[in-house]
Amino acid sequence: MKEKKIYLTEQEIPNSWYNMKADLPKQLPPMIMADTLQPPAIEMLERLFAKPLIEQELSTSRYIEIPEEVKKLYSMYRPSPLIRANFLEEKLGLKSKLYFKNEGVSPSGSHKSNSAIPQAYYNKLIGTKRITTETGAGQWGSALSMACKVFDIECVVYMVKVSYNQKPYRKILMETYGATVYPSPSEHTSAGRAILAKFPDTSGSLAMAISEAIEDTLQDEHSRYALGSVLSHVVLHQTIIGQEAKKQFELINEYPDIVVGCIGGGSSLTGMAFPFVQDKLTKGKDVRIVSVEPKACPKFTRGIYAYDFGDASNMTPLIPMYTLGNGFSPSSIHAGGLRYHGGNAELSLLIKEGIVEAHALGQKEVFAAAVLFAQTEGIIPAPESAHAIAQAIVEAQNADAEGKPKTILFNLTGHGHFDMSAYDNYLSGEMQDIVPTDDEINESLKTIPKAPDISKY
Amino acid sequence: MKEKKIYLTEQEIPNSWYNMKADLPKQLPPMIMADTLQPPAIEMLERLFAKPLIEQELSTSRYIEIPEEVKKLYSMYRPSPLIRANFLEEKLGLKSKLYFKNEGVSPSGSHKSNSAIPQAYYNKLIGTKRITTETGAGQWGSALSMACKVFDIECVVYMVKVSYNQKPYRKILMETYGATVYPSPSEHTSAGRAILAKFPDTSGSLAMAISEAIEDTLQDEHSRYALGSVLSHVVLHQTIIGQEAKKQFELINEYPDIVVGCIGGGSSLTGMAFPFVQDKLTKGKDVRIVSVEPKACPKFTRGIYAYDFGDASNMTPLIPMYTLGNGFSPSSIHAGGLRYHGGNAELSLLIKEGIVEAHALGQKEVFAAAVLFAQTEGIIPAPESAHAIAQAIVEAQNADAEGKPKTILFNLTGHGHFDMSAYDNYLSGEMQDIVPTDDEINESLKTIPKAPDISKY
Repeated sequence: MKEKKIYLTEQEIPNSWYNMKADLPKQLPPMIMADTLQPPAIEMLERLFAKPLIEQELSTSRYIEIPEEVKKLYSMYRPSPLIRANFLEEKLGLKSKLYFKNEGVSPSGSHKSNSAIPQAYYNKLIGTKRITTETGAGQWGSALSMACKVFDIECVVYMVKVSYNQKPYRKILMETYGATVYPSPSEHTSAGRAILAKFPDTSGSLAMAISEAIEDTLQDEHSRYALGSVLSHVVLHQTIIGQEAKKQFELINEYPDIVVGCIGGGSSLTGMAFPFVQDKLTKGKDVRIVSVEPKACPKFTRGIYAYDFGDASNMTPLIPMYTLGNGFSPSSIHAGGLRYHGGNAELSLLIKEGIVEAHALGQKEVFAAAVLFAQTEGIIPAPESAHAIAQAIVEAQNADAEGKPKTILFNLTGHGHFDMSAYDNYLSGEMQDIVPTDDEINESLKTIPKAPDISKY
Repeated sequence: MKEKKIYLTEQEIPNSWYNMKADLPKQLPPMIMADTLQPPAIEMLERLFAKPLIEQELSTSRYIEIPEEVKKLYSMYRPSPLIRANFLEEKLGLKSKLYFKNEGVSPSGSHKSNSAIPQAYYNKLIGTKRITTETGAGQWGSALSMACKVFDIECVVYMVKVSYNQKPYRKILMETYGATVYPSPSEHTSAGRAILAKFPDTSGSLAMAISEAIEDTLQDEHSRYALGSVLSHVVLHQTIIGQEAKKQFELINEYPDIVVGCIGGGSSLTGMAFPFVQDKLTKGKDVRIVSVEPKACPKFTRGIYAYDFGDASNMTPLIPMYTLGNGFSPSSIHAGGLRYHGGNAELSLLIKEGIVEAHALGQKEVFAAAVLFAQTEGIIPAPESAHAIAQAIVEAQNADAEGKPKTILFNLTGHGHFDMSAYDNYLSGEMQDIVPTDDEINESLKTIPKAPDISKY
């Protein structure tokens, strides 16, 4: 009998992170400053990030070694198990096979610890006393709070207001790890005050919270800033997921036909998928890479590929990405981690080139899948992760209907224990699917700045 | 380098549960009816429990085979990892070693699934359509809801009112698994109505909720009742924990000097400890077995060994146990799972005979340990489990102070993701330690019925 859960030993934790930039089919357009149209000065980046993280951000080396101290902390929960969703398969009568990586086993409850730990580690190395960040659903804020506590660094989190209100337990979790948490937009920053003056009833957004966290960092010379997605060094750290998954599939002599992940800023899909994209591009492996985003925030399915700011107050460099415009204001869906207007640059390029597919789902169908998963596999998925479950089920049923059952891998990025109010909303029948109209999206796209044509790069 | 997490394969899930009754140093006094002073009639037991569970309840066989279907469902999360708490050790500068079984990896979040799954399975075998139960902290209710859903059995949970109000997410979790949840005491039963008439402001107790669940079961012939602790068949199922732990210690060529577990009805400690008690009694192993209860509900440290009812309305048989009296009304501590007036019969006998030690802690020192554990090992422990952490730290520090470092094993019975309001209460500095006075306990002991002298058995 095969095991349901496939484990690796801690000795088998990968020694390196995989850098997708080394194998992209085209040169990645560089990040540029809106005023100079040149890459940002190193001094400006160093004011925000620890130097080793900037080096990783700009590196094109294929593999970057994971420090021993980081691997030691990864051993809290890594390698994460690869799990066969056999009970879900049986319930649906599938011939296709469903596997998932359970990143919800991390102490903070999601894959976000994979980057929080090295980010705190490198900041400790350069003597950072305090780290500011933003968080959407709260997964990144929880992970960074925990990592900062381990390295004795103060942590300040700007939490998107809708999540702050929906998820009081997330706030307490971060406080238990010693962090200070503000709802964003807040009165603590001029960015926050300006947004509140203009939109007093806003439910907030990641783009707004990023503006606040950056401004806060710049007020205190011992502070540095940390981001939980979008940037290259973040998705780099996440590639430990896909590398482990490949080893685990080797152990059972299988290989996935389809790899599925949800999309916020990009870390959920890319961490799982990039090592498989590498196989696809460099070894000709026949594997489909499927991204899934909420219909309420459809950057890859309805946005455009362009240079745009990463934040709402236009403090960041311009990032080459799919975007709905930095002024996009997503509805208050429960998958707070997927309410971001743009996406990681490498992933955006791969979608532009047709190497990664883009799909979108409404939150009611997502929660139907989440409840089915909970009632069969037992695990309560985070609303973000439930997008991947729902899409994986769609792929499996399509494959079965074609008479060609597939092996499907998805990333269960986190558990939903702090999202029970979302389940309550679904079970009560009151959940709404709010999808932006074409007019709303066209209006929002106008917030993309005039910048060089990205296709020139 | 040794691994932090010691796993077993699913093939190594034990084939049998271990029955402590086979190796007790004295004959266990039987359960008896208050009116006849004779053991309950089988027909009465069968009205409440599935027959295979009654057979297990009364069995003195040393090992009872685990059905394949149960083992298959156990594979959702079992074997649970044995984890070295090395980060906590380092923080405290300990020479003693701390290990814990992480039962929080179960889908319902605690060890309670170990008994919920077989109880639902055996009920399915006899055709039960509906199971009623009570829950304190909500761990048992969550576990049973999930197990019932898998076997397509309706589940009704009477949840102690204080927990129902403190933990709204627990209720939603059970509803996500398809259960119906009532706060207890409720208006749904005559037992509940009688209690509300007498004590309209009561925060409820497990003993009251048990009365309601039993009465509910008796109203519907297709219903059966399930209990999450106290009874012999429940602690039997939990022994899978300690059996796994012994295998895991064998893998690393170690053996614990001290085994620590918290005490509610008994399942948290016994599941881990009984296989080690077996070694102590039958192989002469030098291992201390340490139970720890809240000072707010001190049955083993301040109660008496006597025949008492398991519920507040005196519907159950008399159980030979340490008890504070079935009318004991514990204060609203956050460890809702430990607010029970009595304890499992086998464990009570072992404590009476001096084979298991009884200790008690206040909830503030327990939460100090919980936060320290969270900030070092990352995991947020359930308030119940945090009692074991706090006692394990005491034992380690005592051993180090004596210059004789020990290997200490404790049972991390569950995570505290649904208990964040308790952490908020602690972090805010508002947490109180409420300990019953001698007068209060003496008053409560008067609710123990007149019954034969237990020492005669």
